[in-house]
Amino acid sequence: MFSTHLSEPLCLRAMGSFHVGGRRLRLAGRAAYERTMSEGGEPVSINPNGSYAVEQMYVQYYLPERSNGRGPLVFWHGGGMTGAVWETTPDGREGWVNHFVRKGWDVYVCDAVERGRSGFAPYPDIWPEGPVTQTVDDVYTRFRIGDGAGSYHDDPARRTAYRNTRFPVDHFDAFCLQMVPRWTHTNDAMVEAFKALLRRIGKAAIVCHSQSGPLAMRLAAESAGQVSAIVGIEPAGMPSPAPETYDTPTLVVLGGNMESDGRWQSLSAKIAAFARRFPALQILRLEDLGIQGNSHVLMMDDNNDDIARRIDAWLRRTIVSVNAGDQA
Amino acid sequence: MFSTHLSEPLCLRAMGSFHVGGRRLRLAGRAAYERTMSEGGEPVSINPNGSYAVEQMYVQYYLPERSNGRGPLVFWHGGGMTGAVWETTPDGREGWVNHFVRKGWDVYVCDAVERGRSGFAPYPDIWPEGPVTQTVDDVYTRFRIGDGAGSYHDDPARRTAYRNTRFPVDHFDAFCLQMVPRWTHTNDAMVEAFKALLRRIGKAAIVCHSQSGPLAMRLAAESAGQVSAIVGIEPAGMPSPAPETYDTPTLVVLGGNMESDGRWQSLSAKIAAFARRFPALQILRLEDLGIQGNSHVLMMDDNNDDIARRIDAWLRRTIVSVNAGDQA
Repeated sequence: MFSTHLSEPLCLRAMGSFHVGGRRLRLAGRAAYERTMSEGGEPVSINPNGSYAVEQMYVQYYLPERSNGRGPLVFWHGGGMTGAVWETTPDGREGWVNHFVRKGWDVYVCDAVERGRSGFAPYPDIWPEGPVTQTVDDVYTRFRIGDGAGSYHDDPARRTAYRNTRFPVDHFDAFCLQMVPRWTHTNDAMVEAFKALLRRIGKAAIVCHSQSGPLAMRLAAESAGQVSAIVGIEPAGMPSPAPETYDTPTLVVLGGNMESDGRWQSLSAKIAAFARRFPALQILRLEDLGIQGNSHVLMMDDNNDDIARRIDAWLRRTIVSVNAGDQA
Repeated sequence: MFSTHLSEPLCLRAMGSFHVGGRRLRLAGRAAYERTMSEGGEPVSINPNGSYAVEQMYVQYYLPERSNGRGPLVFWHGGGMTGAVWETTPDGREGWVNHFVRKGWDVYVCDAVERGRSGFAPYPDIWPEGPVTQTVDDVYTRFRIGDGAGSYHDDPARRTAYRNTRFPVDHFDAFCLQMVPRWTHTNDAMVEAFKALLRRIGKAAIVCHSQSGPLAMRLAAESAGQVSAIVGIEPAGMPSPAPETYDTPTLVVLGGNMESDGRWQSLSAKIAAFARRFPALQILRLEDLGIQGNSHVLMMDDNNDDIARRIDAWLRRTIVSVNAGDQA
């Protein structure tokens, strides 16, 4: 079950949502098509011609009664996921939304363009391709929960996992329920919608994961001081092409068990090379602190509170107060 | 902008989310395909064979510090929409999530199967059809904001609306950002996922809208006393075929300007016929109270607080306390 009684109530001065960004376009001259809108009904004619709102982004906000005065903190999920990744963990513990609200951060959680409550554009009328859906098998190994190829089976009793894993493996099936299809041509639209968010809420810090890591760094490089800091949870790459300069304070957090994963060895090397070139980027390798076994979704691992505390401390050291009046 | 300072803070004893229901299936023997996962990258081979989790439902919960002891209140959106429909209104006022939490309800907001953060199954490998996307033009008239065919134009200055409309028409473009594609063969999966929710949270009241109206009534008829009450905001139909018996206390709320809309005249007649046969269903026609001009999305109209107060009063009269201990 999920936790319904917390040690302390969560008090918010505001809670709600909005959509930002996107563009309008109009389809004309297309043929109508027939569709049965509800099982057992009669087919009706659907006219696809008209105006469409596409490539907007959904943002939900939780503003604590007492803000820490350091400006908005925006959570940006990875590929095949939505904002739900920052909420309750698959085994029912509090996620990072609640953790950071309790620390006084003005928390904003986005569903990136084409994910979750942001919606997506009709294919093939507006977008050139349909989405890609990862298999559960692939998620199990790619997220460094299972210990290599062949570790996944539909029968949980037959699965194998890293012996030191911090992921709540008994709840892996619950985790899979939050994976969603993703598109593969929408990076630019995601970054544009995020710029619209920054225009709306002002300078902000970003906690991003996997796919969104290089996008958040690109956003910062293109946004002239509007990104105060970036925490990149296992970014799936570095900005390509590399920027000329990069001066946004950035903390990259890397989990465990990368030594047996060729993809992550190569990514780690790329991240280290970027850090050597741009000292604004620091790497926090949890294993260097003696913390073993974190998965690719370490915000859900059993030590997620400990990692969040370390990130909160880094953010507080890094971000100069943006509104001294709120800190009283 | 959105409201960031409320008159009173919102204090929650729990806030989070989970997914429920759905099924697992395995694809085998399909051909791999090539896809460029990120612009500028090399095409990679994608293997679609493996296990998929499909037809689950995302549920977000907000449990107030002081519950009114009447059990869960679940919000179920209409077609082409997500749970966002119950959050902040397009013009930035508080929506019904906040309103009902403030009234002490344990609020659960779902994204129905295939909508929002619930994800959807790959087409055509698992689901037989792709989604349908409504045009903005269609939404404007179908939701009884524009006063008939031809009332929509991309240029807001050229649009016409019902003169008495309570919808915040200057923010119609913001509203459009929350519309999403919908599938047309997923009614059964939606009802099944909702049954899984009731198994998890227990007997609950449901506030539903449009497409979900007849589905919630069917759910109640199939769920042996597990639905304590239904508030149907302009249901898009009645259960078909009609049930043998129907004894779930149900309040159908109907907005204004239906006399000039053939579709709603026909629907109103169907609802009235159901109410004559099954007295458990009552109709609240807002115009009968002298309240004119409500649109199909009346939870966003400028009198949404007044309507919410009436619904809250009806729910309190209808639902016997499920947990007297919480009411102290």
